[in-house]
Amino acid sequence: MPKTATRAGARHQINFDLNTWLDARSAATNTALDRFLPSEKTKPATIHKAMRYSIFAGGKRMRPALTLAAAEACGGTEADALPLACAVECIHTYSLIHDDLPAMDNDDFRRGKPTNHKVFGEGIAVLAGDALLTQAFEITSLAKGWPRYSHRDLVLEVAKASGSLQLIAGQVADLEGEGQKLSVAELRYIHERKTSALLCCAARLGGMSANCTPAQLQALTDFGYHVGLAFQVIDDILDVTQTSEQLGKTAGKDIAAQKATYPSIVGLEKSRKIAQQLTAKAFAALKPFKGRAAALEALAHYLLTRDK
Amino acid sequence: MPKTATRAGARHQINFDLNTWLDARSAATNTALDRFLPSEKTKPATIHKAMRYSIFAGGKRMRPALTLAAAEACGGTEADALPLACAVECIHTYSLIHDDLPAMDNDDFRRGKPTNHKVFGEGIAVLAGDALLTQAFEITSLAKGWPRYSHRDLVLEVAKASGSLQLIAGQVADLEGEGQKLSVAELRYIHERKTSALLCCAARLGGMSANCTPAQLQALTDFGYHVGLAFQVIDDILDVTQTSEQLGKTAGKDIAAQKATYPSIVGLEKSRKIAQQLTAKAFAALKPFKGRAAALEALAHYLLTRDK
Repeated sequence: MPKTATRAGARHQINFDLNTWLDARSAATNTALDRFLPSEKTKPATIHKAMRYSIFAGGKRMRPALTLAAAEACGGTEADALPLACAVECIHTYSLIHDDLPAMDNDDFRRGKPTNHKVFGEGIAVLAGDALLTQAFEITSLAKGWPRYSHRDLVLEVAKASGSLQLIAGQVADLEGEGQKLSVAELRYIHERKTSALLCCAARLGGMSANCTPAQLQALTDFGYHVGLAFQVIDDILDVTQTSEQLGKTAGKDIAAQKATYPSIVGLEKSRKIAQQLTAKAFAALKPFKGRAAALEALAHYLLTRDK
Repeated sequence: MPKTATRAGARHQINFDLNTWLDARSAATNTALDRFLPSEKTKPATIHKAMRYSIFAGGKRMRPALTLAAAEACGGTEADALPLACAVECIHTYSLIHDDLPAMDNDDFRRGKPTNHKVFGEGIAVLAGDALLTQAFEITSLAKGWPRYSHRDLVLEVAKASGSLQLIAGQVADLEGEGQKLSVAELRYIHERKTSALLCCAARLGGMSANCTPAQLQALTDFGYHVGLAFQVIDDILDVTQTSEQLGKTAGKDIAAQKATYPSIVGLEKSRKIAQQLTAKAFAALKPFKGRAAALEALAHYLLTRDK
């Protein structure tokens, strides 16, 4: 991660120390998650150990960072945004635990550590995912509501992004697409749901926690959507260009699983170009914030230039 | 099911046509569930087929019935209670789909039909459970709120009853208790979480949908708790006394899985006595409703005398 983020293809440099910003937000997220989740000693200990194993497995906290950065861009406070940032991270972690199961992507390693079911067994891994999904809604309802964004709105936001038309639809289409020749449109359908939906939700929740204007919410929606698509295209690229050691997870999985990816459909160079175009659209979405969205810009830049 | 419910061990008969009452409530619940769940044609079709397969697999709708009966007892309307009744049924169905998985109870049949993973495969079954759990929160947030019972309260109610300290804790303790010699206290810990938590939640949500008084909510809590425990003791009894054909699911599973049950710890006769005592406590909890809780009484009676 560069110490000073440079906006790809832009005319000027962003002077923003993303490392320092991310470290502080990640620490705050970890402290809050530790507070929201039952301790490892809480009965039954197994399930809480399993939940915490995956929650504290070294995730980069990109989704909470998006929520917190969006809140900042809308003039909100970290305290108001943190519960929603944690709820999104619980959803993200649950989806990883379930996606890694033998009946789905059958992954033995995640972030360089054995996956949840390799440590706790499949039964507990299913339940740990279930528990984190449920916990996400408990945490969401503990967040602060506003007249413009009630608890009903917040819960609906999380439920819709995570439900059978979005996050789960993405995983289903991904499973069903294995070994199939997909078009770019079909691949985008998967990416929109598997990745963009939750990134979009993360950004929107940050805005909602700050009682943002409808125009700001729309800007965050566009931003999250395009960052999400770019993020997934880059994930596809890294899967074929990096080693397992560099990634901290099994590389070349997409090819092994015969999954359609951007590189396999349009080639590496075109994939890189698409990622850059999507990022440019994400930057464009931030215009209404008129320079108050430095953290969001730096995050988008990081997501485009990351190497793991 | 008796046409006219007789209160076990009570001095008088309840003149209440439970069959007719249940048929109407079950039909209303099915219509509402059909409206809340995406159609089988909604993309991706597989997940919506899988969700609907288990939701419409012939469940007795006892939990929705509890919610609707509790609402009636508190002077509420069916329309206000139905979304919450459906949310509880989604939670119940998700928990059955996941509990039936090979990594957990490994059940091939449920309600006389092949279990979800036998029809759709394990991956989709995990996701169908996830989707129903998520849908439950979406439906909860679509319910009507009151100043006394806001959407925050409703979502917290569902999340806590379904979370790692209640419903999921019960399944974890159940899994970990297999092959172990459990005390009655340990078995009750499992039953309180695996069964009472959600029945209690079902009854409480009915009261909340009717803007009930705190005293009524407490009465419904006591009622749901004791009905839940009685329900589970009877489930244990039926597992050893009935055939698979009579139950519509595999009988003798508890013995095969070396699960501790009330009959295995205290014997059949004592188990029946415990079930009756718990039901008596459930009836006692209904006193504050002064005769307006006929449906709740009839339901409790049915749960004690059912043979499948």
